[in-house]
Amino acid sequence: MNHRGILIVLSGFSGAGKGTLVKALMDQYDNYALSISATTRQPREGEEDGKAYFFKKVEEFQQMIDEGAFIEYAKYVQNYYGTPRAYVEEMLEAGKDVILEIEIQGALKVKEKYPDALFLFVTTPDADTLKNRLTGRGTETEEVIASRLARAGEEAEGIGSYDYLIINDDLDEAVREAHEIIQGEHFRVSRKTAFIEVMKEDLKRFSKGE
Amino acid sequence: MNHRGILIVLSGFSGAGKGTLVKALMDQYDNYALSISATTRQPREGEEDGKAYFFKKVEEFQQMIDEGAFIEYAKYVQNYYGTPRAYVEEMLEAGKDVILEIEIQGALKVKEKYPDALFLFVTTPDADTLKNRLTGRGTETEEVIASRLARAGEEAEGIGSYDYLIINDDLDEAVREAHEIIQGEHFRVSRKTAFIEVMKEDLKRFSKGE
Repeated sequence: MNHRGILIVLSGFSGAGKGTLVKALMDQYDNYALSISATTRQPREGEEDGKAYFFKKVEEFQQMIDEGAFIEYAKYVQNYYGTPRAYVEEMLEAGKDVILEIEIQGALKVKEKYPDALFLFVTTPDADTLKNRLTGRGTETEEVIASRLARAGEEAEGIGSYDYLIINDDLDEAVREAHEIIQGEHFRVSRKTAFIEVMKEDLKRFSKGE
Repeated sequence: MNHRGILIVLSGFSGAGKGTLVKALMDQYDNYALSISATTRQPREGEEDGKAYFFKKVEEFQQMIDEGAFIEYAKYVQNYYGTPRAYVEEMLEAGKDVILEIEIQGALKVKEKYPDALFLFVTTPDADTLKNRLTGRGTETEEVIASRLARAGEEAEGIGSYDYLIINDDLDEAVREAHEIIQGEHFRVSRKTAFIEVMKEDLKRFSKGE
């Protein structure tokens, strides 16, 4: 069954375990591909082009912006980061469910261009757990902790734009839950229009006795 | 976790195996309850009230209609059939996912009253398989078969009102698929508003240093 994959936009609270969840999904199932960002920052030692990032010169990145080659992009500090559309499209066409791990702001931009993307938000089972994770091992200043909590509060305001919550209490359970949600999504009627059209046409022929 | 259950409206082509699917879901998992219809038809031998049906006198049924006690009802031949709201509500409040097996016309009425119900449509993997099932063992007249196929064609026109397709090729797979879709649905953001509100409130308190 060679169907187009689903674009999965995955966000969540810092400290909710997004990275671990994504890694586990990639390790345990073979239907996923990870979107690779492009960046203008310098590769660190041992970083290969096309693995964690596509490394671009500022002019190259600027040209890609001009060509509309990004699903979304943003500038952090002095460097650009963006999601190249070509790689995502290639993987979707190959039938892979493509995971795009991204902040809420970027996620909203993706929604404009891919309204049929599946939006998942990863959270701890409650705010106390999140607070404990953000507080760390007691090595952070009160100021840092307060700013992390304020940020989590802002992130929480954006949850309404997502489709499903992934509650990461037990990792294995969260991974299974995320996988089930994504697999179920393939059977959504709005994603099965081709199947339904063929069914209708065939039934029309049959009932005419053809 | 005592959450309200989900109302599952399940329809599908005659011959697609709805009944078998529902039975398997009920047998294999304990989170489901089956909606029980009320009817004015006479109980057959051995039929207990409150098992397959709630048996009602015509006046009783009429009164229930007047009181708005039905989620939907219809008259077939000379008998009334309806879905009593009270039983469904009781099961939903008890945290059960309530399965309502119903024809498309009835399903659309349910949608008006329960816009957050989950609508599943059961289909064979293709029209040929459906045709074979409807054709039966060669004992049916051409007329009967043609009318069944025409009806299937009409049913197909209604699929767009459903949320998910359950493609019943292999029964075990279809059961698992249906179960995964329903379980995933519990994590839909629109069904987790209480969880999200608590999270927001707690984070607000925390970031004020409370």
